[in-house]
Amino acid sequence: MSHNLLKGKKGIIFGALDNKSIAWKTAQRCVAEGAEIVLTNAPVALRMGTIRQLAEECNNAPVIPADVTSNEDIEKLFDQTLEHFGGGIDFILHSVGMSLNVRKGIHYTENNYDFMHKAFDISAISLHRVLATAMKKDAINEWGSVVALTYIAAQRVFPDYNDMADAKALLESIARNFGYQYGVKKKVRVNTISQSPTQTTAGSGVKGFGDFISYAEKMSPLGNATADQCADYTVTLFSDLTKMVTMQNLFHDGGFSFTGVSEAVITGMGER
Amino acid sequence: MSHNLLKGKKGIIFGALDNKSIAWKTAQRCVAEGAEIVLTNAPVALRMGTIRQLAEECNNAPVIPADVTSNEDIEKLFDQTLEHFGGGIDFILHSVGMSLNVRKGIHYTENNYDFMHKAFDISAISLHRVLATAMKKDAINEWGSVVALTYIAAQRVFPDYNDMADAKALLESIARNFGYQYGVKKKVRVNTISQSPTQTTAGSGVKGFGDFISYAEKMSPLGNATADQCADYTVTLFSDLTKMVTMQNLFHDGGFSFTGVSEAVITGMGER
Amino acid sequence: MSHNLLKGKKGIIFGALDNKSIAWKTAQRCVAEGAEIVLTNAPVALRMGTIRQLAEECNNAPVIPADVTSNEDIEKLFDQTLEHFGGGIDFILHSVGMSLNVRKGIHYTENNYDFMHKAFDISAISLHRVLATAMKKDAINEWGSVVALTYIAAQRVFPDYNDMADAKALLESIARNFGYQYGVKKKVRVNTISQSPTQTTAGSGVKGFGDFISYAEKMSPLGNATADQCADYTVTLFSDLTKMVTMQNLFHDGGFSFTGVSEAVITGMGER
Amino acid sequence: MSHNLLKGKKGIIFGALDNKSIAWKTAQRCVAEGAEIVLTNAPVALRMGTIRQLAEECNNAPVIPADVTSNEDIEKLFDQTLEHFGGGIDFILHSVGMSLNVRKGIHYTENNYDFMHKAFDISAISLHRVLATAMKKDAINEWGSVVALTYIAAQRVFPDYNDMADAKALLESIARNFGYQYGVKKKVRVNTISQSPTQTTAGSGVKGFGDFISYAEKMSPLGNATADQCADYTVTLFSDLTKMVTMQNLFHDGGFSFTGVSEAVITGMGER
Repeated sequence: MSHNLLKGKKGIIFGALDNKSIAWKTAQRCVAEGAEIVLTNAPVALRMGTIRQLAEECNNAPVIPADVTSNEDIEKLFDQTLEHFGGGIDFILHSVGMSLNVRKGIHYTENNYDFMHKAFDISAISLHRVLATAMKKDAINEWGSVVALTYIAAQRVFPDYNDMADAKALLESIARNFGYQYGVKKKVRVNTISQSPTQTTAGSGVKGFGDFISYAEKMSPLGNATADQCADYTVTLFSDLTKMVTMQNLFHDGGFSFTGVSEAVITGMGER
Repeated sequence: MSHNLLKGKKGIIFGALDNKSIAWKTAQRCVAEGAEIVLTNAPVALRMGTIRQLAEECNNAPVIPADVTSNEDIEKLFDQTLEHFGGGIDFILHSVGMSLNVRKGIHYTENNYDFMHKAFDISAISLHRVLATAMKKDAINEWGSVVALTYIAAQRVFPDYNDMADAKALLESIARNFGYQYGVKKKVRVNTISQSPTQTTAGSGVKGFGDFISYAEKMSPLGNATADQCADYTVTLFSDLTKMVTMQNLFHDGGFSFTGVSEAVITGMGER
Repeated sequence: MSHNLLKGKKGIIFGALDNKSIAWKTAQRCVAEGAEIVLTNAPVALRMGTIRQLAEECNNAPVIPADVTSNEDIEKLFDQTLEHFGGGIDFILHSVGMSLNVRKGIHYTENNYDFMHKAFDISAISLHRVLATAMKKDAINEWGSVVALTYIAAQRVFPDYNDMADAKALLESIARNFGYQYGVKKKVRVNTISQSPTQTTAGSGVKGFGDFISYAEKMSPLGNATADQCADYTVTLFSDLTKMVTMQNLFHDGGFSFTGVSEAVITGMGER
Repeated sequence: MSHNLLKGKKGIIFGALDNKSIAWKTAQRCVAEGAEIVLTNAPVALRMGTIRQLAEECNNAPVIPADVTSNEDIEKLFDQTLEHFGGGIDFILHSVGMSLNVRKGIHYTENNYDFMHKAFDISAISLHRVLATAMKKDAINEWGSVVALTYIAAQRVFPDYNDMADAKALLESIARNFGYQYGVKKKVRVNTISQSPTQTTAGSGVKGFGDFISYAEKMSPLGNATADQCADYTVTLFSDLTKMVTMQNLFHDGGFSFTGVSEAVITGMGER
């Protein structure tokens, strides 16, 4: 059901890989709520995924390849987007993350530092690059809204999350700091959504992810939040109903973040 | 503009005193979004305020007096509400607070403890009473949403806020703890919104409130959030788009909460 | 081994019941570090416990009965203490907590509100009463240090902790707010230590406490902190080496507070 | 006055530049408390500073140059340290930070990304490198203690702090994540101290730092913490009295971190 929450709004969605992606669901929901969008992802991801299908569903949204670690690519992305829409945009979803230390199963205490820098560049500094480029080109309209997806490993240790934990802490810091700057300059708001562990194609790379998802399910009073629910929540943050929310990290996790221990988990331990 | 976000939903609004109240604005917005409501306030507040006018605007919403410190009153409130709607409710706004230590200008370090207990009873324990009564009567439908209004004095010291700071810390704790219980039992979510200082009739009682509002305005990248904007935000939390958000304290304050110092404030200090 | 960290300092220790109490251990450690102390507890606790033995060990420290919910008792406590020492004190340990809802096994969602008020009065407002009385009598010397013991249930939900969770949230708020006031007025600092679950006589009253202690042990990289270690840590906060630490909640828990999940816990869940 | 808190302990102090440095004061205090130390800094910093004088004072402590961004240098540092002491160490102070974006006065929204990577490498990843190397060489004894200095810009926005804010957020995340790993593996604890703005030679590089220091002074109930006081506090964290404190960020700031607004600041604003 549509509420026309984003009627007339225009935005860019980063990171839709396939139909399990949160970004994919968010693109669909934004369009259903009346928005026009541009889709972007890394060239290699565009080749692997099935984004054309999504683009068609989304009223033939343009798909613009961009490596988030390249200033040049991000500049082109904004130039083409502004040209496509004939004006500024109202929202951005940043759903981008990658760690070679995770992918290669390197233990956190033995991380490779080139991989670590790469992880930070792709997963966190990319948000700075996107916002800095947008600001330089004055690409976001007043009261525009930027959301980046993050994870609670930025606050507490989840050992298998490896250096993505540090990348997410960095991402949240950049969201907060740039959020201040863009707020003062042009009333643009920047927030992060800290989502439950979600069974996406990207998430599958994390060691022991299945076990962890069931643990989180047991620990969350409402269970884990799904990708679809995350898309819904993101829509509210892009809408005009949340204009004064900025520089926040917003947990969307069925209550996991503030549950010290659940009866479901403690009962399990006691029975052993 | 309505988005029909609350179509078919039913709820109770606590604390609408006059047309400056956040609860008043929220009642109007809920009805505009398609909800049916019941209004309630303390008997004395009902006499002082102009709630009949609001009730009429809200499709002749029933106005049920209830002292939030009385189990009996809260029971009656739910009984009458359930009868009126012929079934359970979907949302509750708790916008209730009062401190005699504040009203009488007693310094925090010299607080009267009877007044302090009274402040906690009205401003915080009332949320427990409301939720416990609702749970006993199974009055809230699955995926129902409860929002209580709070203030950042629960996290950081604002000296003039006096014992209302402690009351708000207690309120947030109760929201979190009851949120866990109601989530596990019936998927009901409970959150607090931590709103910018707002020029309401109640807020006016706090010493030096005017000066403080301008300080907060300077410290917030987007400025202070208004009562109208708070009503908008509350609507998103009552809607089905935020189903997995629970046990959270959500700052709605133009970025005040994560601004250490703003250029506007530091420039001011430097010039002196 | 003594470091003479508290040489010449004088203080009051609240809440030593028996030799499992954190307060008991802290009293011993303070005296070992060169301090002189006064012991106090509720009259009923003094009758139940074996505090005379502790008093003897502590160079015949005076034992002054005081009900922390009585202004009069707290006034007498300070009067007698000041007289005993012939001057002001340098530190206070507040280790006081009691909930009838917990003791009687009443579920959080069905809490009795008289019991709840009583729990807050004893466990939290008592800190305000102690500090307000001290301030009125100018009983704490400049750079004095006050520590209250708390628990992480103030931040996150531990369902069996019941209304003591709310009491601890309130206690931490009072520590913060009064810490500001006493800091500005007389450079007195006020902090809370958030200790691992500890097998004390008081702690034993909490339902399922044994299971929970093993869970916390598995979740903490260094294991649970003991009462002896808590006494050591408290000594550092009473010493002159931590003069600028105030209004803080300090976790003393082997890393529990910032561990999202440990390998010990997740492995256990996976094996099931 | 010495308390022999570190008698028999051995450690490495990173980042003593001159006698204004916190690291300098900490080195002196550690030695006064009975420790033996090794001093290290970047080769260029060693040339600029007067570290030889400090080394002499500290019982002729070895000075080992090491670029914290070089794996090889850090390996050599540990090899030479282990050889010097004939065994493992008990503590490390990490007081290292540098941003070319800050030095060159580049606005946060226009940051150069090579500089940003460099800032993160020097100021944050360096802690990972030090701990990973130590772990590989099993260089830290059981219950060893690692402290890194940080700043509250990791939590809240201080616009002039620029990309050092992000670097500090990253540093704290690394401390937490590595703290978990080293705790589980060898009971080594890792914490950060979040210190008041301090007039060091390094701090002087930040724009408007003088104004900011006076603002922080007014905002802190106890005033700003000095470098000497920070050294005292660090000593407690290196001692055996704080064995169960790990993965924490500890504010040492006279109460700044939990003061929303002080009367000194609000009065100032009101008078304008």
